[in-house]
Amino acid sequence: MVLNDLQQELREFAAQRDWQRFHTPKNLVMALAGEVGELADLFQWLTPEESAAVMTRPEQAERVREEVADVFAYLLQLVDVLEIDLAAALHEKVQQNERRYPVSLAKGRADKYDLLRAEDEDA
Amino acid sequence: MVLNDLQQELREFAAQRDWQRFHTPKNLVMALAGEVGELADLFQWLTPEESAAVMTRPEQAERVREEVADVFAYLLQLVDVLEIDLAAALHEKVQQNERRYPVSLAKGRADKYDLLRAEDEDA
Amino acid sequence: MVLNDLQQELREFAAQRDWQRFHTPKNLVMALAGEVGELADLFQWLTPEESAAVMTRPEQAERVREEVADVFAYLLQLVDVLEIDLAAALHEKVQQNERRYPVSLAKGRADKYDLLRAEDEDA
Amino acid sequence: MVLNDLQQELREFAAQRDWQRFHTPKNLVMALAGEVGELADLFQWLTPEESAAVMTRPEQAERVREEVADVFAYLLQLVDVLEIDLAAALHEKVQQNERRYPVSLAKGRADKYDLLRAEDEDA
Repeated sequence: MVLNDLQQELREFAAQRDWQRFHTPKNLVMALAGEVGELADLFQWLTPEESAAVMTRPEQAERVREEVADVFAYLLQLVDVLEIDLAAALHEKVQQNERRYPVSLAKGRADKYDLLRAEDEDA
Repeated sequence: MVLNDLQQELREFAAQRDWQRFHTPKNLVMALAGEVGELADLFQWLTPEESAAVMTRPEQAERVREEVADVFAYLLQLVDVLEIDLAAALHEKVQQNERRYPVSLAKGRADKYDLLRAEDEDA
Repeated sequence: MVLNDLQQELREFAAQRDWQRFHTPKNLVMALAGEVGELADLFQWLTPEESAAVMTRPEQAERVREEVADVFAYLLQLVDVLEIDLAAALHEKVQQNERRYPVSLAKGRADKYDLLRAEDEDA
Repeated sequence: MVLNDLQQELREFAAQRDWQRFHTPKNLVMALAGEVGELADLFQWLTPEESAAVMTRPEQAERVREEVADVFAYLLQLVDVLEIDLAAALHEKVQQNERRYPVSLAKGRADKYDLLRAEDEDA
């Protein structure tokens, strides 16, 4: 299992450094927010087109690659301490979204599901 | 491959709704920031102890589970459009961190690697 | 007016560098997310007590001071391009919250207003 | 003083509800991250042009106005507990940026100051 292997690798890394005591869920959420902020920093001034081409510029590509790895690392450590099965949680969420965003209502629209429903009931 | 399967599931979900055109890397980073914000919102007033017990309260547990799924969904879609192999990127990052945070310097300390190095050189 | 003076200072700074073209509302929100991420990074591993004492440690204090200034700078530039009167918007929000969080229901509790109301109606 | 007046208003609001005990710097930073996430959520799928026109759509305008007020509220409460003079901190930061981003180097470019300097020294 890929996710479990990665979590195991992160768990050992933290245990060797005696870092688990910093890893409360609250602290890990905050660390995740910090890393997503670094990712936002890389994209903030880019046009949509520049953002789509970011991986063709080696220096930017390397930083983006590092930041998504950092985000993933904290997400995996967070679900590890929370004992959440991340793949299962995502699979359930997709199924919930299949119900919330039926193709007939959501096609081509970026609106939230409650707005889609409200408009559908008005019609 | 678990990550590929989840990405395929998300890709089909977006394609059926004609949502790929919203999914520039920039927009996906911003969506990721939005979801991490929702996760922060769930933990912001909790003590460290309350945060460690969050999954024992069913209503909170359900919301946390949904939010980590949302974060993961946008992260997977982001690396999909960027064509980054997330597991490989994380594995490389852990190896980089093995060098940056040697156990002898980092044990029990939450300092950044540049600070650890600077202090080590001073010593 | 203090806020206007600060906004004027930021406006001139950006105009001299021909940076206004980067300052779409979307980009400024993303820059704000980036700076709040840096602030989160400074606090992520601190205990509640350490966070309360952060300004007594000169190096940390300086970084916190810089980051809150960055957050404020992007917030002021954002409301400038959106033509929102920030002081008025905040004053209205406080008045709305006076209604949403009556002292009798909200005292000592960190719950959202919809939860407070639901419980009050159940009682 | 406008900022002081707003802080006083927020201080009274919190004191009446016995909420100051939730307001450690760490918690307020996390609350700030949560509100910036909600702001990101409002802008994530907008094109640059749509983001520039967001205040012409009354329902979106109202939500943006509320979210910037929330961000400002937590920022003011954060600097209040940290005893940072926000206007002074911003003014100093602008002066620092005047030195870091000289017009001759920074004009029309969104690069970080260390990159500007490195290129200037190479030239």
